[in-house]
Amino acid sequence: MRAVGVIVEYNPFHNGHAFHLQASREAAQADVVIAVMSGNFLQRGEPALVSKWQRTKMAILNGVDIVFELPYRYATQNAETFANGAVSILAAAGCQYLCFGSESGEIEAFQQTIHFLESQQDSHEKNIKHFMGSGVSYPKALALSYKQLSNSENYLDLSRPNNILGFHYIKAIHEQRSQITPLTVARKIADYHDEHFASETIASATSIRKALFSDINRPSEINQYVPEATRQLLHEYLNQHGLYHRWENYWPFLQLRLLHSSPEELKEIYEAEEGLENRLQHAATEAGSFQEFMERIKTKRYTWTRLQRLCVHILTNSKKIDMEGSKRAGYLRLLGMSERGQEYLNKMKKEFALPLVAKLSSFKDEEVNLDLKAARVYAMGVPGPAKKILMEQEFKQPPIIIKK
Amino acid sequence: MRAVGVIVEYNPFHNGHAFHLQASREAAQADVVIAVMSGNFLQRGEPALVSKWQRTKMAILNGVDIVFELPYRYATQNAETFANGAVSILAAAGCQYLCFGSESGEIEAFQQTIHFLESQQDSHEKNIKHFMGSGVSYPKALALSYKQLSNSENYLDLSRPNNILGFHYIKAIHEQRSQITPLTVARKIADYHDEHFASETIASATSIRKALFSDINRPSEINQYVPEATRQLLHEYLNQHGLYHRWENYWPFLQLRLLHSSPEELKEIYEAEEGLENRLQHAATEAGSFQEFMERIKTKRYTWTRLQRLCVHILTNSKKIDMEGSKRAGYLRLLGMSERGQEYLNKMKKEFALPLVAKLSSFKDEEVNLDLKAARVYAMGVPGPAKKILMEQEFKQPPIIIKK
Repeated sequence: MRAVGVIVEYNPFHNGHAFHLQASREAAQADVVIAVMSGNFLQRGEPALVSKWQRTKMAILNGVDIVFELPYRYATQNAETFANGAVSILAAAGCQYLCFGSESGEIEAFQQTIHFLESQQDSHEKNIKHFMGSGVSYPKALALSYKQLSNSENYLDLSRPNNILGFHYIKAIHEQRSQITPLTVARKIADYHDEHFASETIASATSIRKALFSDINRPSEINQYVPEATRQLLHEYLNQHGLYHRWENYWPFLQLRLLHSSPEELKEIYEAEEGLENRLQHAATEAGSFQEFMERIKTKRYTWTRLQRLCVHILTNSKKIDMEGSKRAGYLRLLGMSERGQEYLNKMKKEFALPLVAKLSSFKDEEVNLDLKAARVYAMGVPGPAKKILMEQEFKQPPIIIKK
Repeated sequence: MRAVGVIVEYNPFHNGHAFHLQASREAAQADVVIAVMSGNFLQRGEPALVSKWQRTKMAILNGVDIVFELPYRYATQNAETFANGAVSILAAAGCQYLCFGSESGEIEAFQQTIHFLESQQDSHEKNIKHFMGSGVSYPKALALSYKQLSNSENYLDLSRPNNILGFHYIKAIHEQRSQITPLTVARKIADYHDEHFASETIASATSIRKALFSDINRPSEINQYVPEATRQLLHEYLNQHGLYHRWENYWPFLQLRLLHSSPEELKEIYEAEEGLENRLQHAATEAGSFQEFMERIKTKRYTWTRLQRLCVHILTNSKKIDMEGSKRAGYLRLLGMSERGQEYLNKMKKEFALPLVAKLSSFKDEEVNLDLKAARVYAMGVPGPAKKILMEQEFKQPPIIIKK
């Protein structure tokens, strides 16, 4: 059976994702689509709107055949580590293809860029160091260095977020000497250059979340941008849990953690560095909300998402010693599957390069402990009895099977 | 000027406290009454109903002349450490007398008991070890040993809570070789043996808190048991902060701390011992409230208050390394005073054996950092903008001066 992998967050699943799925299946002429999906905390350093289980249902009802969790150790990370974790999972699960959305839409541009940068490695590293010395963030320094080195128009625009991710996916495939063939499809985004149909039905997940939070009682605002299954699953989650998760729900916990910790303890947290912990502690005594806190700690030196990821690690108490280490995942945590996905697993699982974990209670591992902890901390954002149910789900929930 | 010291929590100040104050002033023929009062967290391992500032106002309006804070390092502790901290403060502030309420009411009984136990020290220690080996708590083992050793009716009933505290006050005076003369007055408590007047006006702080929480909108229930000033100050606090503090307000914070910490980290917390941390972590995943949590972790081995104190230390992240050390306080933190108290301070402060701290911002000390942290954590129990005000008060509030 031919499998294509996709790397996703589905926060929430929208029409653009449906387009990407369909295009990936066609481009690879695949029998099954395997998604590796961030768990409860995302690459931007945010809690997901709804739990990974609800997002797994969205994925399968909208055409994904198998959903594996991207473990916390890779999900809440910079593009490079995120890509390494995700690619290692897709490779272990036997995907022949990886298909990602990009602004570019041309796979050759990615390949050329990687070869070009490999040939310029020394200058590139020197450049990055130089630009970071001037006080800009790492991604910014990388883009500036690249712009200085490359003059050809054939090369990739590395200032675009999905090009950067794609670049790291292909780099990970190279570095892991994986047999996966990368493919890319141009993203459909709602801007002036889009045709009429697209602008009526495609919106970014960011704008969908914004609409959901701006008036939680008028979910119809997003109807034209998400499939019916997403609408229903969002509605169901809101009914059962009383909220969509957002940073503000966790702000008091972050604040207390900052107030009662010593600077030495905070220094042990992953991504805490260079006196950042003092800045955070001071802001915690002043700020009245997470938004205000972030505005107080923001500098040119660090991106917003970099700082949000640090906040997630403080919230989950994830330390350097827990997070540093392997570039490749240690297991395939199965969150859900379609009937076709089940058939694929039955045929192929003996050949998987990593253990298949269907239930957490039957698998002991340090990396999976981080996922368990993240799930418990995520549940703390929910008030009342729903908190306990969400917490227990991490241990008791078998993989979701949806027959279509 | 002649000063009598009292050791108090005033949670809240009630008619029994007014009686004790008046009796102390008379017994010592004192010009001023100096109170050393627990801060925001109390000896029973609970947050105080209202902040230390509001309780300072209660104290002064009801007849105390000077209020010093009993630092966190001594306040949230067993009777022995609590007594050592409090006595060291009263001694440093020049008190000639300490007057405490007790079930006994006879100072000779305390003196005799201490001399008797000193003479029996070896047997006593052996006994305590023996009884604790059978699984009972330390206070229980102490009382059992004492009962076994002493047959005379002249000795103290050490199963009564205020007798135990008094016993430790006098022991601290002995051990610190202090010049303070101890006095005791019999507590007025509302039981069948009390005369009619007492039972109509005296109730324990526990029953007053219970009445306050049982129907927060009917504060009149406590009117007959507390002075007018207490009524007004409680009412004012509730209006400004929206609540009276209780453990349930801090339960989510305690729960998260238990869920995201490693057993090794929890072992560093003061009073965490003998695998207690595993028991706590397991209960945290199961319990839906602080009450339920406590019922799950309770064993014969540990008293309820011992476990609550451990929970306070987890909440404030107070470690063995922070809490162990000196038996005597390092400063006199002035919370408030009457005019007469101010006069006393002006005359006497040059002779004080410890630095007088009127504003936190002008004093750096590790012990006082614990108080600052406790105040910030205490403020986290309050929602909305009142949280920030309460947090800043710790730094900005000058000592309260009330002219009567």
